Amino acid sequence: MNKEKNAIIVGAGLVGSLWAIYLSKAGYKVTIYERRPDIRKAEISAGKSINLALSYRGWTALKGVGIEDEIKSIAIPMPGRIMHSEIGEQTFQPYGKAGEAIYSVSRGGINAKMMDLAENLGKATIHYNVQCTGADLNAGTIYLENLLTKEKFQDQADVVFACDGAFSAVRYTAMQKMDRFDYSQDYIDDGYRELLLPANEDGSYRMEKNALHIWPRGRFMLIALPNEDGSFTCTLFMPFKGEKSFESLNNDAAVEDFFKETFPDFYDLSPDLLHSWHSHPLSSLAIVRCYPWTMGKFALMGDAAHATVPFYGQGMNGGFEDCTIMAQLMEKHAEDWTKIFEEYQILRKPDGDALQDLSVQNYFVMRDFVADPMFLLQKKIEGRFSELYPNKWLPLYSQVSFSDTRYSDAWKAGLKQDAIMKKVMDRADIAQVWDSKEIEENILNLIDQE
Amino acid sequence: MNKEKNAIIVGAGLVGSLWAIYLSKAGYKVTIYERRPDIRKAEISAGKSINLALSYRGWTALKGVGIEDEIKSIAIPMPGRIMHSEIGEQTFQPYGKAGEAIYSVSRGGINAKMMDLAENLGKATIHYNVQCTGADLNAGTIYLENLLTKEKFQDQADVVFACDGAFSAVRYTAMQKMDRFDYSQDYIDDGYRELLLPANEDGSYRMEKNALHIWPRGRFMLIALPNEDGSFTCTLFMPFKGEKSFESLNNDAAVEDFFKETFPDFYDLSPDLLHSWHSHPLSSLAIVRCYPWTMGKFALMGDAAHATVPFYGQGMNGGFEDCTIMAQLMEKHAEDWTKIFEEYQILRKPDGDALQDLSVQNYFVMRDFVADPMFLLQKKIEGRFSELYPNKWLPLYSQVSFSDTRYSDAWKAGLKQDAIMKKVMDRADIAQVWDSKEIEENILNLIDQE
Repeated sequence: MNKEKNAIIVGAGLVGSLWAIYLSKAGYKVTIYERRPDIRKAEISAGKSINLALSYRGWTALKGVGIEDEIKSIAIPMPGRIMHSEIGEQTFQPYGKAGEAIYSVSRGGINAKMMDLAENLGKATIHYNVQCTGADLNAGTIYLENLLTKEKFQDQADVVFACDGAFSAVRYTAMQKMDRFDYSQDYIDDGYRELLLPANEDGSYRMEKNALHIWPRGRFMLIALPNEDGSFTCTLFMPFKGEKSFESLNNDAAVEDFFKETFPDFYDLSPDLLHSWHSHPLSSLAIVRCYPWTMGKFALMGDAAHATVPFYGQGMNGGFEDCTIMAQLMEKHAEDWTKIFEEYQILRKPDGDALQDLSVQNYFVMRDFVADPMFLLQKKIEGRFSELYPNKWLPLYSQVSFSDTRYSDAWKAGLKQDAIMKKVMDRADIAQVWDSKEIEENILNLIDQE
Repeated sequence: MNKEKNAIIVGAGLVGSLWAIYLSKAGYKVTIYERRPDIRKAEISAGKSINLALSYRGWTALKGVGIEDEIKSIAIPMPGRIMHSEIGEQTFQPYGKAGEAIYSVSRGGINAKMMDLAENLGKATIHYNVQCTGADLNAGTIYLENLLTKEKFQDQADVVFACDGAFSAVRYTAMQKMDRFDYSQDYIDDGYRELLLPANEDGSYRMEKNALHIWPRGRFMLIALPNEDGSFTCTLFMPFKGEKSFESLNNDAAVEDFFKETFPDFYDLSPDLLHSWHSHPLSSLAIVRCYPWTMGKFALMGDAAHATVPFYGQGMNGGFEDCTIMAQLMEKHAEDWTKIFEEYQILRKPDGDALQDLSVQNYFVMRDFVADPMFLLQKKIEGRFSELYPNKWLPLYSQVSFSDTRYSDAWKAGLKQDAIMKKVMDRADIAQVWDSKEIEENILNLIDQE
């Protein structure tokens, strides 16, 4: 008779809930400790909430435990982005090929569903309002405090997974105190504030439902993702300080004027902009890097290992992919956790780094380039070439969002593509000859030279 | 009647003790909380201890409160380094001009002396065995625990200075939890282990007293600094892992063989190498960066703000210079701490960064280049030119160690000098013409082109 295998997961967020299902299918008894109350019962948000965009890697991880249909039922496909110009003109840009889309999900909605699945399908026990206060990493012991009763206790398992987010308590209270643990938290200069664009009174959407809407304005931008109830979750990203900044929007008149001037069509659609403005906090954005990701019987997964800024829509997808990878390694190493953890961090750390590099780079793309005619022309050339030679050119966005190419490989391929396209776009007459045979040959030659 | 001004300092290390004297002279009642026991009474080390090299900035800060003579009495001048080759040949390289030297001090010795001065001259009250467990940054309140009695208490002051080292408790328990606090701890691949080379039986030195001894060997190196009792504190720096590494020196025979082969003259001088090897731990080295350095009524100083690796001998000197700068700003802003703190961090952060960049770069210089004939020739050319045109060329080492040029300016000047010398050294016949008028003119022209 086998001894029962026990696992502890810290954090009942998206990655923790999904990983509980994987572990349960592998025969583990799973206990989850979650710092917050049960979001399915309490009137609280599921943390920082920018709507999420599920894409290929996320779906792959969900399929791995057969729950993709459950999630698809609460996801809205967005086959492209709709760019809104200063005068309200809209331009649709597909994200990939026909049939490809990323999917809008609300963080609260998907988290609640994932918790249901972790409990029902994963047979996990979730303890809420329990905070991690420390750990004995080699022993697999975790020190805990019930935030309601103030009771302090501990638990122990064969393996422990810290899926407790960007400011992971396991990482902060245990790993960061260990010798030779590299760690960094870097805040970007920009913050964000959410706004809700409600449904029309008849429940219909005020803008095209099946798209990610974006108002790129150079140093700042507004985006909107559809919700199931007809509303859009909108997010304004801009610098904390400076001429046009959150600091400068310090009174209602300034906010009104700013929106009227900068996002006129959005302003006209919004029934109660100021109320929405005041009902959401100003939040910050950070990149958190660390290494090692595993110590003793503990491993970091998701944001706890590689928290990123949201500009490539890959935070959740990358965290879900951690589950795919860890599950593959469990199989490969027949549940020898020393080997699994060692390979997991060596294999996956470069992908975490690349995911973060991609996210930061895409911030500039979204903010600065999406409205730039030369950038749009470049994307048209890339798109045309990719259709003609699909084996020679998969656009970076597709590699990241519609494939499971390793993030680190996608990042390197993207740098090569950029170098090639820089040469192509340098031609003075590129706008005239962009769809010519000559340009095609030109790109083919440049690829061969790489 | 003026209200009494109160200040709290966390950490009775070198910077904390010195800063207490400065504050006391400015009329503050100073209370210091120190986590460790009183090193003057207990048989403990004063933390990680590589001997320290006091140089210009350190002396300037000591002079600022008139205690340079007290410290000079326990400091040994080192006007240059003595390089030991694989066959035991020694080469002396002066650090600066005639009369210039850096000074060897033992960390324990200088720390004990500084505590005496803080108490007697600075009228500071030092509480030992008291750990900081948190802080209310805006209130100037610090939460404390007596590690012997387990008593928890708090204290409050007009201003609080965290001089509590690379792994500052104030920074960790309070600042790192604040929104938008940037932080990183990066360990280098190399560790260090100390060795004591004792005095001869008659108390005399086994090597030249007045020098920093160095055995550069490419990927690793050994250094030795003189102590007052005739001994040398020696430090082996090398990678943790790899072919020649601490990992590979995993038994007594391997250690003996390694020293016999690699540092033969040192091996012959050492009466009990293995005992010394086993009586010191293997330690790691990290660069810690963060920002902001001030929050509310709290400021970070010294290692707590900008911990560095020891390869430029500037950790203590840079920390002492923080005191010089802070004291100047107190005067400039008439003790308006909001203004002082704001200018302190804006002014000083680039210098902390540069100090760290210089330290890392000098690791490569010490390890790789000090034994390279072309590097030595380059230094000779620079030295010659600097003597001829002292206003046009102050060697980087002198800018850092024998001047109070801002670290950030020294770093930039060093990059320019490197670019110039790279061009000069590119001449095939440089070894023949190095001291010619032509090379002189060549350098003058290159300086003008910058």
